Amino acid sequence: MTERPAISPTRQEDFPEWYQQVIAAADLAENSEVRGCMIIKPWGYAIWERMQRELDRRIKAAGHRNAYFPLFIPLSFLEKEAEHVEGFAKECAVVTHHRLEASEGRLVPGAPLAEPLVVRPTSETIIGAAFARWIQSYRDLPLRINQWANVVRWELRPRLFLRTSEFLWQEGHTAHQTAEEAEAEALRMLRLYEGFLQEMLALPAVAGEKTPRERFPGAVRTLTLEVLVQDRKAIQAGTSHFLGQNFARANGICFLSPEGRQEHAWTTSWGVSTRLVGTLIMAHSDDNGLALPPRVAPTQIVLLPLIRREEERAAVEEACARLVAELEEKSYAGEPLRVEIDVRPLPGGSKNWEWVKKGVPLRIEIGPREVAGGTLSVGRRDRSPRERLSLSVRQFVEGAEQILAEIQNGFWERADAFRKAHTRRIESREEFVEFFTPRDPEKPEIHGGFAELPWAGDAALEEKIQEEQRVTIRCIPLDQASERGICPFTGKPGSHWALLGKAY
Amino acid sequence: MTERPAISPTRQEDFPEWYQQVIAAADLAENSEVRGCMIIKPWGYAIWERMQRELDRRIKAAGHRNAYFPLFIPLSFLEKEAEHVEGFAKECAVVTHHRLEASEGRLVPGAPLAEPLVVRPTSETIIGAAFARWIQSYRDLPLRINQWANVVRWELRPRLFLRTSEFLWQEGHTAHQTAEEAEAEALRMLRLYEGFLQEMLALPAVAGEKTPRERFPGAVRTLTLEVLVQDRKAIQAGTSHFLGQNFARANGICFLSPEGRQEHAWTTSWGVSTRLVGTLIMAHSDDNGLALPPRVAPTQIVLLPLIRREEERAAVEEACARLVAELEEKSYAGEPLRVEIDVRPLPGGSKNWEWVKKGVPLRIEIGPREVAGGTLSVGRRDRSPRERLSLSVRQFVEGAEQILAEIQNGFWERADAFRKAHTRRIESREEFVEFFTPRDPEKPEIHGGFAELPWAGDAALEEKIQEEQRVTIRCIPLDQASERGICPFTGKPGSHWALLGKAY
Ligand SMILES: [Zn+2]
Ligand SMILES: [Zn+2]
Repeated sequence: MTERPAISPTRQEDFPEWYQQVIAAADLAENSEVRGCMIIKPWGYAIWERMQRELDRRIKAAGHRNAYFPLFIPLSFLEKEAEHVEGFAKECAVVTHHRLEASEGRLVPGAPLAEPLVVRPTSETIIGAAFARWIQSYRDLPLRINQWANVVRWELRPRLFLRTSEFLWQEGHTAHQTAEEAEAEALRMLRLYEGFLQEMLALPAVAGEKTPRERFPGAVRTLTLEVLVQDRKAIQAGTSHFLGQNFARANGICFLSPEGRQEHAWTTSWGVSTRLVGTLIMAHSDDNGLALPPRVAPTQIVLLPLIRREEERAAVEEACARLVAELEEKSYAGEPLRVEIDVRPLPGGSKNWEWVKKGVPLRIEIGPREVAGGTLSVGRRDRSPRERLSLSVRQFVEGAEQILAEIQNGFWERADAFRKAHTRRIESREEFVEFFTPRDPEKPEIHGGFAELPWAGDAALEEKIQEEQRVTIRCIPLDQASERGICPFTGKPGSHWALLGKAY
Repeated sequence: MTERPAISPTRQEDFPEWYQQVIAAADLAENSEVRGCMIIKPWGYAIWERMQRELDRRIKAAGHRNAYFPLFIPLSFLEKEAEHVEGFAKECAVVTHHRLEASEGRLVPGAPLAEPLVVRPTSETIIGAAFARWIQSYRDLPLRINQWANVVRWELRPRLFLRTSEFLWQEGHTAHQTAEEAEAEALRMLRLYEGFLQEMLALPAVAGEKTPRERFPGAVRTLTLEVLVQDRKAIQAGTSHFLGQNFARANGICFLSPEGRQEHAWTTSWGVSTRLVGTLIMAHSDDNGLALPPRVAPTQIVLLPLIRREEERAAVEEACARLVAELEEKSYAGEPLRVEIDVRPLPGGSKNWEWVKKGVPLRIEIGPREVAGGTLSVGRRDRSPRERLSLSVRQFVEGAEQILAEIQNGFWERADAFRKAHTRRIESREEFVEFFTPRDPEKPEIHGGFAELPWAGDAALEEKIQEEQRVTIRCIPLDQASERGICPFTGKPGSHWALLGKAY
């Protein structure tokens, strides 16, 4: 008898549906009655909280201070930067009234606003207006602010975590004296995200710059981190923008220079969002459900007491309590181990599967046999769900940190090997087309990946490739090979190596 | 020469204006261009973050799990509970469109929504709809969820922190099998808030129940914590509601009981908001600005290096760095001390005053003299700004925890004494009127306080008192004196002791 994995369909059978089922099986989130808006359930939110806590620590250590700006932006603010408003106009939720009134037994909007308010899709304009007040002189620079907030960009084709009308994020905003300093800041924050993705989420990302066509509306340069997930599509996991003086001009962010001149400041902005949760799922989970790298797992070790008869209870529960106490004295990656006991009166097998699907790194079964022998039956999320290791309590307590580090590292190694295996240097147009064409057009199998090639094209060529292959330039990687080559599309020497792929 | 305090006007001269000036001087927050919406600046936000972190810890320890629900609520959801919608209709921001379109060179709302969306003023209805899906059987109960979020209630007379159109808060929502269990939960969370106010914010609060007239729209019972601030007005610092089966009925939150019957769940909700920051300011600050209890201070100790000549710099900076390292090894109230060095090249006096106005509990000046003598010049925020204690480095490092505990305790003692001094047992109607009537009607001085009296009135009497004296029943205190008395308004025996006051 071949056993079906816990999630149906599997990744190979239907990746998008597998993704939904992993989220449902791990109880991470669900769609709400409001189109495009999700409910983040406790287990999903706990993962986001772990990301948030660590990222907040790193951002503060980098010298930024948190603040909070209004949810609503006057329409006129958005209009100040022409590219910016054009970029966001199509997806803005607009507040037009500030009261409900009864009319024919129903409630209708009453009290129209003199000027409509937009629910922030991002906060450059409203934060820019504040910066204009706060900054007078070069002594007020650099100014480094971060905000944790919800933002709204209306989505017609939503997908849990990856693309939702409302999402949670952090947005950093800084102002500087010089272009060089601001550009360096944008790069520094991109590298901060890269380190976070690597160390916490075990996600290898390609750091690069977007082409003008894919830039943030109003930015001079947009830097990005592109992660290849298991259906070999790219996800933009974080971005950092050098905004030049565009928003400073639009908002009047001026300062008196050391030489006594009035100058416009140079600004940046950068953000990551709950999209990271979706990226994490698509990168690491398997056909048995969610799989969490230990550093981001809300619970790293779950204890499953196996009690078949009432007279076994006391000894097993006591052993569990003792084990929790010992484990919580230990730490991994600088934090006390996060341990939970699942005491629900459910069969051991179904509890075990539930925690497999929730992605907890280590599952420990303790029954009368283990208590008697001073052993533990240990299941690792990076091994088959049925595989068990029998360890003495001492071995496990002393070794837990080591095992977690090994699992964390394994996630990274696997994801990094996957990215390398599915990054192809493309020499010809034919090879490019072949790389991105599924063998079965009816029911496309997982195919493609990252295509690396010397690029000498323009925006028109980018558009053509997108139309024909649904492939875009994900970025011009920051780390460029020294050799140059010939652009397979134009036959000209490439100005840079570009990374192309299909994307979420 | 009598010296003016740092804040002008003083509390006695003009309390509301003093409040604004304290906020400005400590750089806590400012009004934004969007009516009623504030910008919480870094120092103000850091205070909120400290509250949030500790409250989050306590709420989780009490068994609640965080989740996140949509910002937008369909109008039809709000309509489900009649009292609820009536209570909030007048202050709802309404989203009617999801796009901006160009029209005659300007942007106007486009793409009207089929059903308008309300920006959440509170989330009972949308969380209730989720609970209805999540709860099937008594085994799913109790369900305990908490959310940290922004909410919007349109304000026509906004005041920073105390009353803003958008504010930040946490809202807890629970569902239970029985009325008793739900009522107990509402009370338990009120007591949790009470402990938090006492231990962290040094705020003595009167715990009590609102009269029907002041209940949360849709609640069966509303419990409240009322804090008396320095102009002797009350601020409702936190509330907890027993919602009976009202929202369960409106939202269809049903469960199969152990006896096999379909029943409606019993629900609660409870919340505190950024209003706590305003309460903290009004309760503890003085005519020299903000004063922070050490447990909630983002920085507990600020080091002010005094460097007059360049050749003094190295020794002073080295001494500062060594002191920070030593202090950060120490802890107070279970957390490492929070220490900051202010290295800005500004005159020592102006830096000192800045930190007085920002409310930091301890200011340490270190100049060449201190370095030579191994001493420190210590200023305490609970003493005069000019008073300095000379302590040896050793004494201070060893004693810092003790000094902070003393300051924290002093805040509590003072606030508690203030509340007691301005709580009056009222025996007659005349006494009541006199208590709440300022001597100078033109420019009312600070007057009144909490009036305690046996109450035998009804809603009509409450309204009359509010109209005539602008005084309301803040609550029926949970801790009732055993003696009963005669209601000074009706001449009848009071059913309870009531606490009345003017309020924010
Ligand atoms: Zn300008
Ligand atoms: Zn029902």
